[in-house]
Amino acid sequence: MTEPVAEKKHSLIASDRIEGTAVRRASGEKIGRIERLMLDKVSGKVAYAILSFGGFLGIGNKHLPIPWALLTYNKKLDAYEIDLADEELKRAPYYEADEEFDWGDRSHELKIHRYYRSPTYWGY
Amino acid sequence: MTEPVAEKKHSLIASDRIEGTAVRRASGEKIGRIERLMLDKVSGKVAYAILSFGGFLGIGNKHLPIPWALLTYNKKLDAYEIDLADEELKRAPYYEADEEFDWGDRSHELKIHRYYRSPTYWGY
Repeated sequence: MTEPVAEKKHSLIASDRIEGTAVRRASGEKIGRIERLMLDKVSGKVAYAILSFGGFLGIGNKHLPIPWALLTYNKKLDAYEIDLADEELKRAPYYEADEEFDWGDRSHELKIHRYYRSPTYWGY
Repeated sequence: MTEPVAEKKHSLIASDRIEGTAVRRASGEKIGRIERLMLDKVSGKVAYAILSFGGFLGIGNKHLPIPWALLTYNKKLDAYEIDLADEELKRAPYYEADEEFDWGDRSHELKIHRYYRSPTYWGY
């Protein structure tokens, strides 16, 4: 009666397994990897995945916060899939890898959600 | 007009900053550290913190899944605080550090929530 883990509907995933996972387009093209997740302390929800790029598109050391809802795990690719064109990635809100992003400032976060046209994780 | 990060109400925290953080009692006594978080893939919510114990109470290599709602970050201690007595920790649901816990089986998870008398993260 046991079924493969991948088929289970309510499965959980370890935070340190997501960190380092590749992010690819549906075509399989790798665009970066997940550095870490940003969690909302109050609700315990994942708010953003922080994407890093190994020089892809000349994005270099920039880190992009992507709303978690935009990422889908693709078993076949063994990667998180995201449908963002080169131009969208180049113009996306970012911060330098060695800088701190001010996560306490909701106006910064609103810019991210507006850019991706993605609902905020904190409701309205 | 800038206020210290710690005072901000809507701040976010990085997953790789939580991993490795100490878990202490209100007295300051260290009981273990957070190995990783287990996230619900569907809702994107943190379900459990996985606690490891460096031989404390003879618990050794056991890993304890603790419902996330039971942990409170204590700034003064620079640790997550949890109010569990030695006896509670000794009898708590666990798995061996080198074993896989079957996260796809809700009946296992229900045992954890019942043990800690903590509401499930998936609702009723």
